[in-house]
Amino acid sequence: MKFELDLSLCKIKEKEFCKAKYFKKFQAENKILHSGNEDMTAWVNYPKTQKKCLVNIKKIAKDISAKADVLIVLGIGGSYLGALAGLTALNKKSKTKVEFAGINFSYEELENVFEKYKKSEVFVNVISKSGTTTETMIAFEYAVKFLKNKYKDEFKKHLLVTTDANKGYLRNYANQNDILSLEVPDGIGGRYSVLSNVGLLPFAVGGVDIDALYKGAILAQKELSQDSADNIAYRYALTRYLLGKNGKKVEVLSSFYPRLAKIGAWWTQLFAESEGKQGKGLFVTNLNFSTDLHSVGQFIQQGTPLLFETFLSCSNVAKDKKLTGIAKENPIKYLEGKTIEDVNKAAEKGTIEAHSNANVPIVKITLSEIDEEHIGYLFYFFCFSCAISGKFLGINPFDQPGVEDYKKNMKKNLLNN
Amino acid sequence: MKFELDLSLCKIKEKEFCKAKYFKKFQAENKILHSGNEDMTAWVNYPKTQKKCLVNIKKIAKDISAKADVLIVLGIGGSYLGALAGLTALNKKSKTKVEFAGINFSYEELENVFEKYKKSEVFVNVISKSGTTTETMIAFEYAVKFLKNKYKDEFKKHLLVTTDANKGYLRNYANQNDILSLEVPDGIGGRYSVLSNVGLLPFAVGGVDIDALYKGAILAQKELSQDSADNIAYRYALTRYLLGKNGKKVEVLSSFYPRLAKIGAWWTQLFAESEGKQGKGLFVTNLNFSTDLHSVGQFIQQGTPLLFETFLSCSNVAKDKKLTGIAKENPIKYLEGKTIEDVNKAAEKGTIEAHSNANVPIVKITLSEIDEEHIGYLFYFFCFSCAISGKFLGINPFDQPGVEDYKKNMKKNLLNN
Repeated sequence: MKFELDLSLCKIKEKEFCKAKYFKKFQAENKILHSGNEDMTAWVNYPKTQKKCLVNIKKIAKDISAKADVLIVLGIGGSYLGALAGLTALNKKSKTKVEFAGINFSYEELENVFEKYKKSEVFVNVISKSGTTTETMIAFEYAVKFLKNKYKDEFKKHLLVTTDANKGYLRNYANQNDILSLEVPDGIGGRYSVLSNVGLLPFAVGGVDIDALYKGAILAQKELSQDSADNIAYRYALTRYLLGKNGKKVEVLSSFYPRLAKIGAWWTQLFAESEGKQGKGLFVTNLNFSTDLHSVGQFIQQGTPLLFETFLSCSNVAKDKKLTGIAKENPIKYLEGKTIEDVNKAAEKGTIEAHSNANVPIVKITLSEIDEEHIGYLFYFFCFSCAISGKFLGINPFDQPGVEDYKKNMKKNLLNN
Repeated sequence: MKFELDLSLCKIKEKEFCKAKYFKKFQAENKILHSGNEDMTAWVNYPKTQKKCLVNIKKIAKDISAKADVLIVLGIGGSYLGALAGLTALNKKSKTKVEFAGINFSYEELENVFEKYKKSEVFVNVISKSGTTTETMIAFEYAVKFLKNKYKDEFKKHLLVTTDANKGYLRNYANQNDILSLEVPDGIGGRYSVLSNVGLLPFAVGGVDIDALYKGAILAQKELSQDSADNIAYRYALTRYLLGKNGKKVEVLSSFYPRLAKIGAWWTQLFAESEGKQGKGLFVTNLNFSTDLHSVGQFIQQGTPLLFETFLSCSNVAKDKKLTGIAKENPIKYLEGKTIEDVNKAAEKGTIEAHSNANVPIVKITLSEIDEEHIGYLFYFFCFSCAISGKFLGINPFDQPGVEDYKKNMKKNLLNN
């Protein structure tokens, strides 16, 4: 297992990482994060301490897989982005397909997902810590009607509720109706929850080896707890902070690997919601290359110099077929004998060179394989780096005070009409 | 047909639009753009002058629809984003499905699209002006093998080439093999080509009424050519320019309407590639609400104040079913009797209020319906606004000198290995 962070194209001097003001800050925050004494940091020690829970998850997943063709997960934000990211990256074959619904206010989209499985065996996993998330609860109402219509009194056997251990509507609903349930643990915000029951159950149903995923996360936890200026979470966090101070207010997570595309969506939530407060934080977004090179490549190369780029890459990708028999007049004749992955790798290398030559600072994160251990490591790495990064900014990376405003307005608008 | 631009939440004074230095610049550029004397501006007068070509497109589309279950379009950047955007927005039922392939360097993704239609009747439309686009030409090689294997000597009858009228490999290939072809007109760059054969053929196959699409575009052309400070293309362009000068270096195109989601991807290419040069331009990206509110909502509300938001909305959406029979303990009980679209509209209104109260300037673009006329108008509106916007920045909005750098490196890397 090899997970590499390469900052050589960031134009940051090595001595910055050793400066006492930064390194001491990291040491102090690292200690606090691992102490368990700060609110909403239960995720820090979670993989190491919760390993035994995987047995239960695997059992539930096995039961679901035995009876269902599809698991429809209802959840929004942190309740689905991690599962979607991991499942897309790992791309497992599984008997039971995993689908996501209830991620917006659209009857059409909700209906499309459920109608597709009208004739299939369906299991629904609703995920909301508070049980109040509007999108999720609308989808839940729809799903319960769908299941009742399909399974009559047996509908309860097709439902799994993932929510707070003790309180809220979904907890009461599960308890009163004797419905299978899992706990969203206290002390873990949605965007840090991918390695809890929130992500683990969809992963296990979708064929992911969750023991291997945890193995990677536990290794990350061990390595990234180290009190060293070589700690890669510290280095990534400090790099972001220094580049931001230096006017690079936008970070783009770019990848040439379609399987890693949804990692970018999860990562965007993690950093945007953790850091975007008190007028601070980097604007984060993700790009899928090569397609987005044909869209924002020009801007990155020559536009307003306000961004830096973090490349998420993989060094060993399964070799695909060689391009052969290309017509000799075809302008791509020079690719004869190469694989498409050879071309992809050359495009990645060429893009990094071109963007770096245009003075775009480049962070490179490279997994040797896209497998469970590496993805588990990656999830933990980004969560831990994000916490440290927020600490450098002087904000609380675990709250989200600004997300209530539109919800309050929405409710007011609905009650007044 | 109603297409509205609302700048009341932009915090720009009305007198700015009347300032001679801006208005005279617009007048001059407006004249030049319509004169036909500037390079790469053939798209400006295109819908009005090319209406007769629609007959031919409809005939070809009808023939394709008669024989194929699927049209697989091979093209990248401007050769697919417009068609994808329009087809997603209009969401027509059509006998022949339209799929897109060759948008990256991934054998896995290419194979997935074609394998899905192994047993179907397949037609392929390859789109590249130059016939040299690497992603497209790799996909074309794959597609020709697939068609030859499936249809033997008849494969030529399942292929449509959209390319330069006179030169390049694809033009020669079509001529020599007697293959059906369409022209990518001169004087229209990829990102301005949605209303040419590039977009029209996939639209027509996908069930879009291209006459109505052109009707909207022709109306836009007429209205937006007007020499008035009320010209909405001028107003949008100047607003972007003034906000950018004022430190708002990121423009986010947000929509609560899933059908408009791909308009954002097309729009992103249009503006990023047109403006991102000479160290200028806004960084543009698009968000799909409500899902992305659970991701970057916190940042927009309270993070670094570097963005403004353009909302793409629709005032009359088909009413969906009312939410009924919600359990009385369910926290969303107050939604009883509302439709999901009512909730969506309230969320949109609430979000605009919340973001505006947080000092985010808001542009609102509202279509009264998501239909052909409005989408045709929208495509033209954005193209024309983008050209004017680029002129305010003092850059050439029609070239893309920076996109060659990575391609050169890629080729060098491939030839050296």
